[in-house]
Amino acid sequence: MMEDMAARIHPTAIIEDGVTIGPGTAVWDTVHIRSGAKVGRDCIIGEKTYLGPDAIVGDRCKLNAFVYVCTGVTIEEGVMVAANVTFTNDRFPRATTPELDALRPSDLEEETLPTLVRAGATIGAGATLGSVFVVRRFAMVGMGSVATRSVRDFALVAGNPARSLG
Amino acid sequence: MMEDMAARIHPTAIIEDGVTIGPGTAVWDTVHIRSGAKVGRDCIIGEKTYLGPDAIVGDRCKLNAFVYVCTGVTIEEGVMVAANVTFTNDRFPRATTPELDALRPSDLEEETLPTLVRAGATIGAGATLGSVFVVRRFAMVGMGSVATRSVRDFALVAGNPARSLG
Amino acid sequence: MMEDMAARIHPTAIIEDGVTIGPGTAVWDTVHIRSGAKVGRDCIIGEKTYLGPDAIVGDRCKLNAFVYVCTGVTIEEGVMVAANVTFTNDRFPRATTPELDALRPSDLEEETLPTLVRAGATIGAGATLGSVFVVRRFAMVGMGSVATRSVRDFALVAGNPARSLG
Repeated sequence: MMEDMAARIHPTAIIEDGVTIGPGTAVWDTVHIRSGAKVGRDCIIGEKTYLGPDAIVGDRCKLNAFVYVCTGVTIEEGVMVAANVTFTNDRFPRATTPELDALRPSDLEEETLPTLVRAGATIGAGATLGSVFVVRRFAMVGMGSVATRSVRDFALVAGNPARSLG
Repeated sequence: MMEDMAARIHPTAIIEDGVTIGPGTAVWDTVHIRSGAKVGRDCIIGEKTYLGPDAIVGDRCKLNAFVYVCTGVTIEEGVMVAANVTFTNDRFPRATTPELDALRPSDLEEETLPTLVRAGATIGAGATLGSVFVVRRFAMVGMGSVATRSVRDFALVAGNPARSLG
Repeated sequence: MMEDMAARIHPTAIIEDGVTIGPGTAVWDTVHIRSGAKVGRDCIIGEKTYLGPDAIVGDRCKLNAFVYVCTGVTIEEGVMVAANVTFTNDRFPRATTPELDALRPSDLEEETLPTLVRAGATIGAGATLGSVFVVRRFAMVGMGSVATRSVRDFALVAGNPARSLG
């Protein structure tokens, strides 16, 4: 039916200007999608999930509740992201002030780093993902993992730090 | 006083049809309780916490903020669940599409698996709990643990994966 | 400009009575700040973050989304707290009822324990922090860490449990 094709956005969700959301996608309560983010068709964006500026989510993805997707993250089609997953885009995040920066060790870089999650992959509940990070096609990051290195096609990784289980 | 006996529901909480909430229970801001869920009496359901369809929470439980309780979870009476705890009900969660499923390894099962948390147990902050999972009476799952095996009565487990500490 | 000096509070944020928020601070959507909490100037309090009763956040701090800051936590100036970080203030949290307490092991203490995060420190995404806990100046707690012991000035700790990496 035609009416099923439109995106369904919960009235408490906050969708900023310049966001693209495909048909058939459902956006749940108090989700916040920042300016420039793109969400494909037939996705579920679970409640309270955050999509940062310019984040990209492909078609038929399922993001569960409390997922934090920051700028620099690209999620391809058919990816499952379970509850409470946190993406990052900065190896050495910090609050900066002139006074503190004068005291701080100077060898810390600061830039927005990319993460790519390939088609069909799964990110388990409660996982935290490092930056400059690729999860290959159909790979799985186990629940609660802290994954800081790229994951091969079809691989399963788990643990803190995450290691390959096959 | 009689007026203390009614459940107190914050106006921003979303309570779907067919939910049962016992007297004396407090439900905080932007909590979402899905259809068919049951919450006992004198509980605290902390802010932004999610109770999935048909989830069960017994009397006098305290769930803190950002707790994700999915379908298949039964929490008995007097259980403490600290902030940011994530339950799961699927060993191999994934987003399914016909095209991707044709490419995907076929040995992955998909079903909703149960978790039981027995009376008096504590689940520490930030813990992630596997499915087909039982936490026994008065057991404690340490903060940040990733617990994938059942926990004995009175036991303390911690780590990723969680191991017994006594 | 003068109008930039006032704190900016999103209309969906809940700020209880007796809260102090400094000028230039931004409070995002559905943040909840409990009675007696103090937030300094030029901070960012990211969306859905919770500040418990009497929690203290210094000037120029950046707290990301889904951060849980409980009573007993003091965060000094210029601290970065990434998404999904959970503080705790109780070594043995539990839901208490007379019937259950009679059955429960009696050697568990219950009190609100303090945490201090010193100026310029960073707490990585998804980290969980124990109580009676000090993070020293410019120290960093790695993402996904479960940190239960104090961290030295300038140190980096990571893992579950968190260990020093230098």
